[in-house]
Amino acid sequence: MDNQIKTIAFDADDTLWVNEPYFQEAERQFCLLLEDYLPQHSVSQELFKTEMDNLQLYGYGVKGFMLCMIETISRISNNLAPLELVNRTIKIGQELLERPIELLDGVAETLGRLKGRYRLVVATKGDLLDQERKLQKSGLEHYFHHIEIMSEKKVRDYQKLLKHLDCRPENFLMLGNSLKSDVLPVLEMGGFAGHIPYHTTWLHEQHDQSQHILQYKNFIELKKIDEIEEVLLQA
Amino acid sequence: MDNQIKTIAFDADDTLWVNEPYFQEAERQFCLLLEDYLPQHSVSQELFKTEMDNLQLYGYGVKGFMLCMIETISRISNNLAPLELVNRTIKIGQELLERPIELLDGVAETLGRLKGRYRLVVATKGDLLDQERKLQKSGLEHYFHHIEIMSEKKVRDYQKLLKHLDCRPENFLMLGNSLKSDVLPVLEMGGFAGHIPYHTTWLHEQHDQSQHILQYKNFIELKKIDEIEEVLLQA
Repeated sequence: MDNQIKTIAFDADDTLWVNEPYFQEAERQFCLLLEDYLPQHSVSQELFKTEMDNLQLYGYGVKGFMLCMIETISRISNNLAPLELVNRTIKIGQELLERPIELLDGVAETLGRLKGRYRLVVATKGDLLDQERKLQKSGLEHYFHHIEIMSEKKVRDYQKLLKHLDCRPENFLMLGNSLKSDVLPVLEMGGFAGHIPYHTTWLHEQHDQSQHILQYKNFIELKKIDEIEEVLLQA
Repeated sequence: MDNQIKTIAFDADDTLWVNEPYFQEAERQFCLLLEDYLPQHSVSQELFKTEMDNLQLYGYGVKGFMLCMIETISRISNNLAPLELVNRTIKIGQELLERPIELLDGVAETLGRLKGRYRLVVATKGDLLDQERKLQKSGLEHYFHHIEIMSEKKVRDYQKLLKHLDCRPENFLMLGNSLKSDVLPVLEMGGFAGHIPYHTTWLHEQHDQSQHILQYKNFIELKKIDEIEEVLLQA
């Protein structure tokens, strides 16, 4: 397989750096704000409902998340919550946008060893400016030939990316923590995909690791990002 | 000049289709909501202040605009406005996201005649998903080789785009309505830039058309988009 792979794409959030735990912490703070109106776990459910209702309109990222939290305040409180809760919610979102970047274990070392041997790219969803800023803060930018911020990660989105990179599916390996967004669509397209599980996943990205995935010969299971080097050497 | 130009990039909002009038209409509706607290023109000033304060954090686009309107409600009303105003503001923003696309005069015809003779690309700021959706709704997608959604349009952002397109500045022409974002940085980089003024411009994009621009020999002044064909032929 090694001599086949020419381009390796990395998901960013929860693959290169910590993300979901920060969102979950923001959500906990938000649920706490509203516990006079509803138990925290119910606030969380209502927020998820608002997010799913607006996903088509807002897409992924912190700004959409902020707008959904604000919308949820009105619905849960029957428009009775004080405006101060909206201000505090905006603050929670702004803090999320300003968090420092915490790289995951082995990321910089692995990128350093792969660089030069493969064309490395980032393929991530989220807000354009926010993801660019995170990449800059991460100090990882120089490892990558190209950064692709995608509004979706379905088969046709990967096909567009590959056309753009002038790369054939059999020469492409995608690594990420989401079976649904990083692994399945790439396998379906005929590419290679490596799953690096993260200890927590957003409900919307959750996916049963079914036989469906295991049947693909191009599927690679990893515990940590640095294991990919050995897989590439072995093949 | 004609045999030099190989790639023509188009700004999208207010160059290919109507945008700023829709934002202004949304802003008028918003100011009207708050006239119990402040005269409409003062609400508008406060909103602009909020937008400028948050521009670095949110970037360009409708979602940031929505968050800024919401923040402005709290400040103007001293946290006393009813939550219902927040809901109505979210509605105003969502309607802005869902507006149909109204092409500007001559756009489709001009693109049709240039396609094949030049590599055509879109280079626009704004929310990723929103701009992609607008392009899809516009029916113009098939004219373009590449769509670049940019978080900023400064010299270094254009340099990145050109590197990515494998295009030299002297083979590049940018067309747009903003002297500040579409014209000046491209001229500074050594490319060609054509200004197609639109009857209204967001305050943040306004720029004195000074001697500074007129001194560049690569600067092209146009009244309408279809005039570019004649300029390209003449040169």
